[in-house]
Amino acid sequence: MIHNSTINQQINHRSIRKFKDQTLSAEQLNTLYTVFQHTATSMFMQNATMLHITDEGKRAKIRELCGQKYVGAEGDLFVFVVDLYRNQQIRRQLGKDDGRVHTTDIFFQGMDDTLLAWQNVANAVESMNLGYVPLGTINDHPLKMLDVLDLPKLTFPALGMQVGIPDQEPQLKPRLPLAFTTFENEYPRDFKVVDLKDYDQVVTTYYDLRDANRRIDSFTKQITGDKLNDKRIDRDELPELLHKQELCLDWK
Amino acid sequence: MIHNSTINQQINHRSIRKFKDQTLSAEQLNTLYTVFQHTATSMFMQNATMLHITDEGKRAKIRELCGQKYVGAEGDLFVFVVDLYRNQQIRRQLGKDDGRVHTTDIFFQGMDDTLLAWQNVANAVESMNLGYVPLGTINDHPLKMLDVLDLPKLTFPALGMQVGIPDQEPQLKPRLPLAFTTFENEYPRDFKVVDLKDYDQVVTTYYDLRDANRRIDSFTKQITGDKLNDKRIDRDELPELLHKQELCLDWK
Repeated sequence: MIHNSTINQQINHRSIRKFKDQTLSAEQLNTLYTVFQHTATSMFMQNATMLHITDEGKRAKIRELCGQKYVGAEGDLFVFVVDLYRNQQIRRQLGKDDGRVHTTDIFFQGMDDTLLAWQNVANAVESMNLGYVPLGTINDHPLKMLDVLDLPKLTFPALGMQVGIPDQEPQLKPRLPLAFTTFENEYPRDFKVVDLKDYDQVVTTYYDLRDANRRIDSFTKQITGDKLNDKRIDRDELPELLHKQELCLDWK
Repeated sequence: MIHNSTINQQINHRSIRKFKDQTLSAEQLNTLYTVFQHTATSMFMQNATMLHITDEGKRAKIRELCGQKYVGAEGDLFVFVVDLYRNQQIRRQLGKDDGRVHTTDIFFQGMDDTLLAWQNVANAVESMNLGYVPLGTINDHPLKMLDVLDLPKLTFPALGMQVGIPDQEPQLKPRLPLAFTTFENEYPRDFKVVDLKDYDQVVTTYYDLRDANRRIDSFTKQITGDKLNDKRIDRDELPELLHKQELCLDWK
């Protein structure tokens, strides 16, 4: 294992859900923006936008839709947006039709740009001894969130991030052993759930130590439980939302 | 602007397309795997897999489909895969139905996991003074690539990466000014293409200095040109490919 300051931060990553009551300095904010800006981008299209939500009313509405009390509370709230609107505008204002901006292909390239930029910013955050939590809940109620963010067509809020000065020191969450997630040449189809027995025990111990009052679930219990059980939820509005945004119109 | 070793690497990122003829050491490889493993993951589902392609025959086929001579040539080739197969297997082997693994929602969460892990690995690569180039071309011919990679249902190769010891020193590619990509609270709809005049000049100068024999395009010329012009290409197989993979089955 090779160690340097970047890698040490990466392998010690924890999500932070409790922040001190302090916001980013202008210099810190500008640094995160600059890192965002320099992320690799597919075909040089630069299909990503980063929103900083500081308005209290808007933060409260986002917090409510996300259903997590730390969203838009202490620290700074960001939303990373797949953005094909900008390039559509360039084409239209220069007398061209929309071309391929409504295709699934270009949307997926925008997802690449946006999510790569997200993690790049996340690593910059931790390098400054700040912490973050990913906000996948930004899409718990996609149609309502779109109204709150008031975004134009051809944009899609992919993922949020709450950033701040950590006010907790969570334990490192144990991940699947590499033998289950990294492979050479061939993807092995002969996965056996019994081989996860040791890992399940490690996960159970982690929860046990983290909070004695909390329900303790092994990894396989979680995967066979509520989070993947069949049900209809607002997150299933995603295809409808993307079409409403005139994205992926070739997906029928 | 705040500087540290992580951030300095991020803001000086260039794609490397020429590598020395040397592969990663076992320790370097294991380090990248460990960083991959510790990336944030949506709902703790760990829906990402990292493939290391070392087989020469497979590398040649991937190179041909990607249409770039540096793919699978000097250095190491990786493919980052959205992987819902593993969790489906856990559910099935423990007597549960597939639940939500075929939904767009869960697929998008898998995209989050996979692309965040991609950028995390990319930052680790640069922290070791190695270089990389993103391989979006992994999806230039989606159906054929799936055959070459021989992946099971419920997986999707999202993005590739060629890694190695840099054998070139490219110039830093100028990005859109922050005023066009980062906003506070409100997304501004009043985008004006004339405001990109200065940036277009910067991009033109960059190409001019990079290679006198190469076509010189400003940013807006690229966006209004071939890369976004209407046409039917194999990349438009993406929706078909995902359904073939039994992903996003709720997207009709």
